[in-house]
Amino acid sequence: MVRLFDNINEQVLRTYIFWAMVLVGKMLLMSVLTIMQRFRKKAFVNEEDIVTDKKLKLKFDDPDVERVRRAHRNDLENIFTFLAIGFCYMLTNPDPWLAGTIFRLVAAGRIVHTVVYALVIVPQPTRLLAWLVPYAACLYMTAQTLLYVM
Amino acid sequence: MVRLFDNINEQVLRTYIFWAMVLVGKMLLMSVLTIMQRFRKKAFVNEEDIVTDKKLKLKFDDPDVERVRRAHRNDLENIFTFLAIGFCYMLTNPDPWLAGTIFRLVAAGRIVHTVVYALVIVPQPTRLLAWLVPYAACLYMTAQTLLYVM
Amino acid sequence: MVRLFDNINEQVLRTYIFWAMVLVGKMLLMSVLTIMQRFRKKAFVNEEDIVTDKKLKLKFDDPDVERVRRAHRNDLENIFTFLAIGFCYMLTNPDPWLAGTIFRLVAAGRIVHTVVYALVIVPQPTRLLAWLVPYAACLYMTAQTLLYVM
Repeated sequence: MVRLFDNINEQVLRTYIFWAMVLVGKMLLMSVLTIMQRFRKKAFVNEEDIVTDKKLKLKFDDPDVERVRRAHRNDLENIFTFLAIGFCYMLTNPDPWLAGTIFRLVAAGRIVHTVVYALVIVPQPTRLLAWLVPYAACLYMTAQTLLYVM
Repeated sequence: MVRLFDNINEQVLRTYIFWAMVLVGKMLLMSVLTIMQRFRKKAFVNEEDIVTDKKLKLKFDDPDVERVRRAHRNDLENIFTFLAIGFCYMLTNPDPWLAGTIFRLVAAGRIVHTVVYALVIVPQPTRLLAWLVPYAACLYMTAQTLLYVM
Repeated sequence: MVRLFDNINEQVLRTYIFWAMVLVGKMLLMSVLTIMQRFRKKAFVNEEDIVTDKKLKLKFDDPDVERVRRAHRNDLENIFTFLAIGFCYMLTNPDPWLAGTIFRLVAAGRIVHTVVYALVIVPQPTRLLAWLVPYAACLYMTAQTLLYVM
């Protein structure tokens, strides 16, 4: 039986790590974006966060804050999923060019998704497509990985 | 000192990857389920998603949509946790049969959880048990792994 | 080219696994804390959870339950991110002492964050700092990892 970790191609692993760090770094920035919107719209959700300004009230439903939080949650749902799938996919000895291309496609899609969801709102189906391309790529890698280890 | 990656049993790793991909694939489907419920109940939460139909209004609290989103969030909380724990657990040289059985139990529990939470609602304590079995398995693996590396 | 997995220092890996399991175990406890608050405040969000007590109504906005859920979501956003970043960082041959220290700092920060968010509410900027230290550490590791694989 092939030892699965020996299937890892070093160049593909570097591509994976590079885009994983870009995407995870992008996710980290979502927290700062949320904090910025909370200050801009004075929309805080914890009593201890507003105690210095007696005039402020808690505000749970600011649309700009919630939009950033939805984009962030969409990242939780899709980027961590990609990290798990992409890592397992590398253990199945995929074509290096194909694997690298898929990783870049997923990363590009997720970056565009954040931009059009949380920064510059554009008409649909832009956000849908930016979500769909990484999504389809993840389904493909999941299927290939299942077939390999079955 | 034993090199931890040398502790990985190839057959256990294949079992882990198989069920990891099943569970992550299942999570991907939650997004489609959410979108289907949003269309069925006309419950969209972004202005740009309803612009083609002037009669639609934003709707943030549809019970069917929120139920799927809660099931999805429960997956985020429990499946990613399992992926991290299960991977580290494999590095502690566990009994292969035990490890494989635990991975299958966790996967079965999480699949049942989704079915009874988001698809066919059944009386409690079904959902509680479907959540508890993987949860207890993860606590066990966490404790074993902590003991091994301490 | 150096094989990246050969860069892993066994002692750093053990430190990583130890604190990863502590943090993930801590996250598992958030679910129990949420359930405890739901029972204490009788704030359930699913019809099937309250069917045995006809007097109960669904309650979606209990402040104590929502506070625990926000702390839990903050963990999803920051702990899984750390797990991914910390793992990749280990592949970049970091100084073992530095890497171990960073992992301990992140873990300490996240534990304090949970305590002051969900258990004992204290004035700001305690929670901000408890969030900021792991956050800055993750940004540092992300930057170092990107530079290494570029």
